[in-house]
Amino acid sequence: MKDDYSAPELQVQEWIGSDSNITLKSLRGKVILIEAFQLLCPACVSHAIPQAIKVRNSFKTQDLAVLGLHTVFEHHDGMQKSTLAAFIHEYKVNFPVAIDQPKEGTPIPKTMSEYNMRGTPTTILIDRFGKIRAHYFGLVEDLNLGAEIAFLIAERTAHKTIIDSDETITISDSLLDMGCRV
Amino acid sequence: MKDDYSAPELQVQEWIGSDSNITLKSLRGKVILIEAFQLLCPACVSHAIPQAIKVRNSFKTQDLAVLGLHTVFEHHDGMQKSTLAAFIHEYKVNFPVAIDQPKEGTPIPKTMSEYNMRGTPTTILIDRFGKIRAHYFGLVEDLNLGAEIAFLIAERTAHKTIIDSDETITISDSLLDMGCRV
Amino acid sequence: MKDDYSAPELQVQEWIGSDSNITLKSLRGKVILIEAFQLLCPACVSHAIPQAIKVRNSFKTQDLAVLGLHTVFEHHDGMQKSTLAAFIHEYKVNFPVAIDQPKEGTPIPKTMSEYNMRGTPTTILIDRFGKIRAHYFGLVEDLNLGAEIAFLIAERTAHKTIIDSDETITISDSLLDMGCRV
Amino acid sequence: MKDDYSAPELQVQEWIGSDSNITLKSLRGKVILIEAFQLLCPACVSHAIPQAIKVRNSFKTQDLAVLGLHTVFEHHDGMQKSTLAAFIHEYKVNFPVAIDQPKEGTPIPKTMSEYNMRGTPTTILIDRFGKIRAHYFGLVEDLNLGAEIAFLIAERTAHKTIIDSDETITISDSLLDMGCRV
Repeated sequence: MKDDYSAPELQVQEWIGSDSNITLKSLRGKVILIEAFQLLCPACVSHAIPQAIKVRNSFKTQDLAVLGLHTVFEHHDGMQKSTLAAFIHEYKVNFPVAIDQPKEGTPIPKTMSEYNMRGTPTTILIDRFGKIRAHYFGLVEDLNLGAEIAFLIAERTAHKTIIDSDETITISDSLLDMGCRV
Repeated sequence: MKDDYSAPELQVQEWIGSDSNITLKSLRGKVILIEAFQLLCPACVSHAIPQAIKVRNSFKTQDLAVLGLHTVFEHHDGMQKSTLAAFIHEYKVNFPVAIDQPKEGTPIPKTMSEYNMRGTPTTILIDRFGKIRAHYFGLVEDLNLGAEIAFLIAERTAHKTIIDSDETITISDSLLDMGCRV
Repeated sequence: MKDDYSAPELQVQEWIGSDSNITLKSLRGKVILIEAFQLLCPACVSHAIPQAIKVRNSFKTQDLAVLGLHTVFEHHDGMQKSTLAAFIHEYKVNFPVAIDQPKEGTPIPKTMSEYNMRGTPTTILIDRFGKIRAHYFGLVEDLNLGAEIAFLIAERTAHKTIIDSDETITISDSLLDMGCRV
Repeated sequence: MKDDYSAPELQVQEWIGSDSNITLKSLRGKVILIEAFQLLCPACVSHAIPQAIKVRNSFKTQDLAVLGLHTVFEHHDGMQKSTLAAFIHEYKVNFPVAIDQPKEGTPIPKTMSEYNMRGTPTTILIDRFGKIRAHYFGLVEDLNLGAEIAFLIAERTAHKTIIDSDETITISDSLLDMGCRV
């Protein structure tokens, strides 16, 4: 029987910024932050990506893995691999980014669909035991994200609670309509 | 004899967001703001484009024309027309954008070269008489830009002074290295 | 017969940061910006005072006079002269500040009452001819304020239009309830 | 023999926003954040106080106590109790604030001196066991502060490491000289 909280494996077309394939399973024992984004999504560019870069700089790699996931569900022509690679370079993205596997007959790619993501940015936290523990659609406050990650790093036994939050947009008025909904 | 302050005509591959071709000459009598940018230039995306949108919303079209100019000088593969069109849509750019004409044998496109732009963002102000009156490379404070535009709108006779400012970056520490230099 | 747009003279208990008494009449020929504030009003401290300092740094003193007006209408005990003087020092206020004359039997001081100010911050623009041309209650965008000042500086003949704007709060969500209303 | 990491008791002239006296000892078992500030210190007003309010809203009272400490070391006349009370009201401070006990013959009050604070804002974290675990002078990033608090809340056994950080100013250029040093 399926355990709903188990994080499904990423379905990746290609990794940028990583030589080898990364699997969630190979990261078991670490907390994992997945930042799902589109390079033309304003709230991703102004908030979620800079935040994920800051998270990468603030926690040790043995405690936390940070993974980007490029989940293109609109403007597919405009967000091809060469554009993504240039974006990663210009924004100094300091973690590996996976291109989510396209799925035939739908604009929504495979991992995005499997995780029931509602749009971008989506931030997902997976605990040391491979369970999804937080699923944020929209913006998350730095203070809260820092605390949630720390709580997960401090855990030594398995838990089952989950935070599922939609559009926790608290940062700034000007971002209110910048998230991209499916 | 050439007058150095006369604004050279734009050399445009294609306009996005405008049915017909726009020339500087056809706008004579209005003040013109040209926002030269690249869609993957961080300081353009976070500062210059939102500022130009705000400028468009703050001044009357009979007084001020706002024109975008996509001056790609790096990552050419990643900033093709389909990506630019999606960018304009997602960021709700509310003024016409010209794609600067590529030039053989150099990554710098034609208008960018003709205007001696040092990188992106570059903001250029042209007065009612077709003279270049300000050339900013980097970020400009809203307060100052608003005042400069208003002074030009208020002018009824020709002038010859010019502001040429390099990297007037005053907004935020985090933007310090986000401008893109040629 | 009274001309409604003539700026009434300030009624000042004391000036801080100026040796002599300043009158609006003595500034005739310049544009005048009056920043009415309270030192414990959050939107004044975070937005209006820093903006007025920036305005002072951006325009020439022969074109524009910037005057602060401390219009205390609440917490009178907490906003006495010694506190105001320390505030001006700590925040590096770079223009003279008048203490509005208290009025018996009402918490609203005299100049505030005469100008029908609705609370703090209030920003008032007076033209070269002594006429009130803008009366903003709440926050004003830098871009717009810079332009309005420049338009007034550029004027060489008398005008009679007035901008009267209530709570033009456009800056940030977090400031929404930070203005102080009478 | 004295244990250097034990948090000395606060020396309080008066509490605002609390009926009874609060002691650190009575809070043993909780993590404690002490926000030392002056109401006329720009970086306190723009950053540290809003951050402490956000911290109060983000953690449970059974896990974390938040205490303000008004450590006046300059402009004493301008920061008396009536001004502090009005400040707390206007800024909607949602935690009790202690007035640090003045000390004869020196401008530095007693608790500030005992804790060797270098100025304001100073943020101190005390663990569940009464040990000082972090002492920040200047600004702290939300992401880091959230994580540090969470790590202390998650601890179930005593520790002895300490973070001592001077001027970790990372937020914005404009705040660079806004902290107040003794």
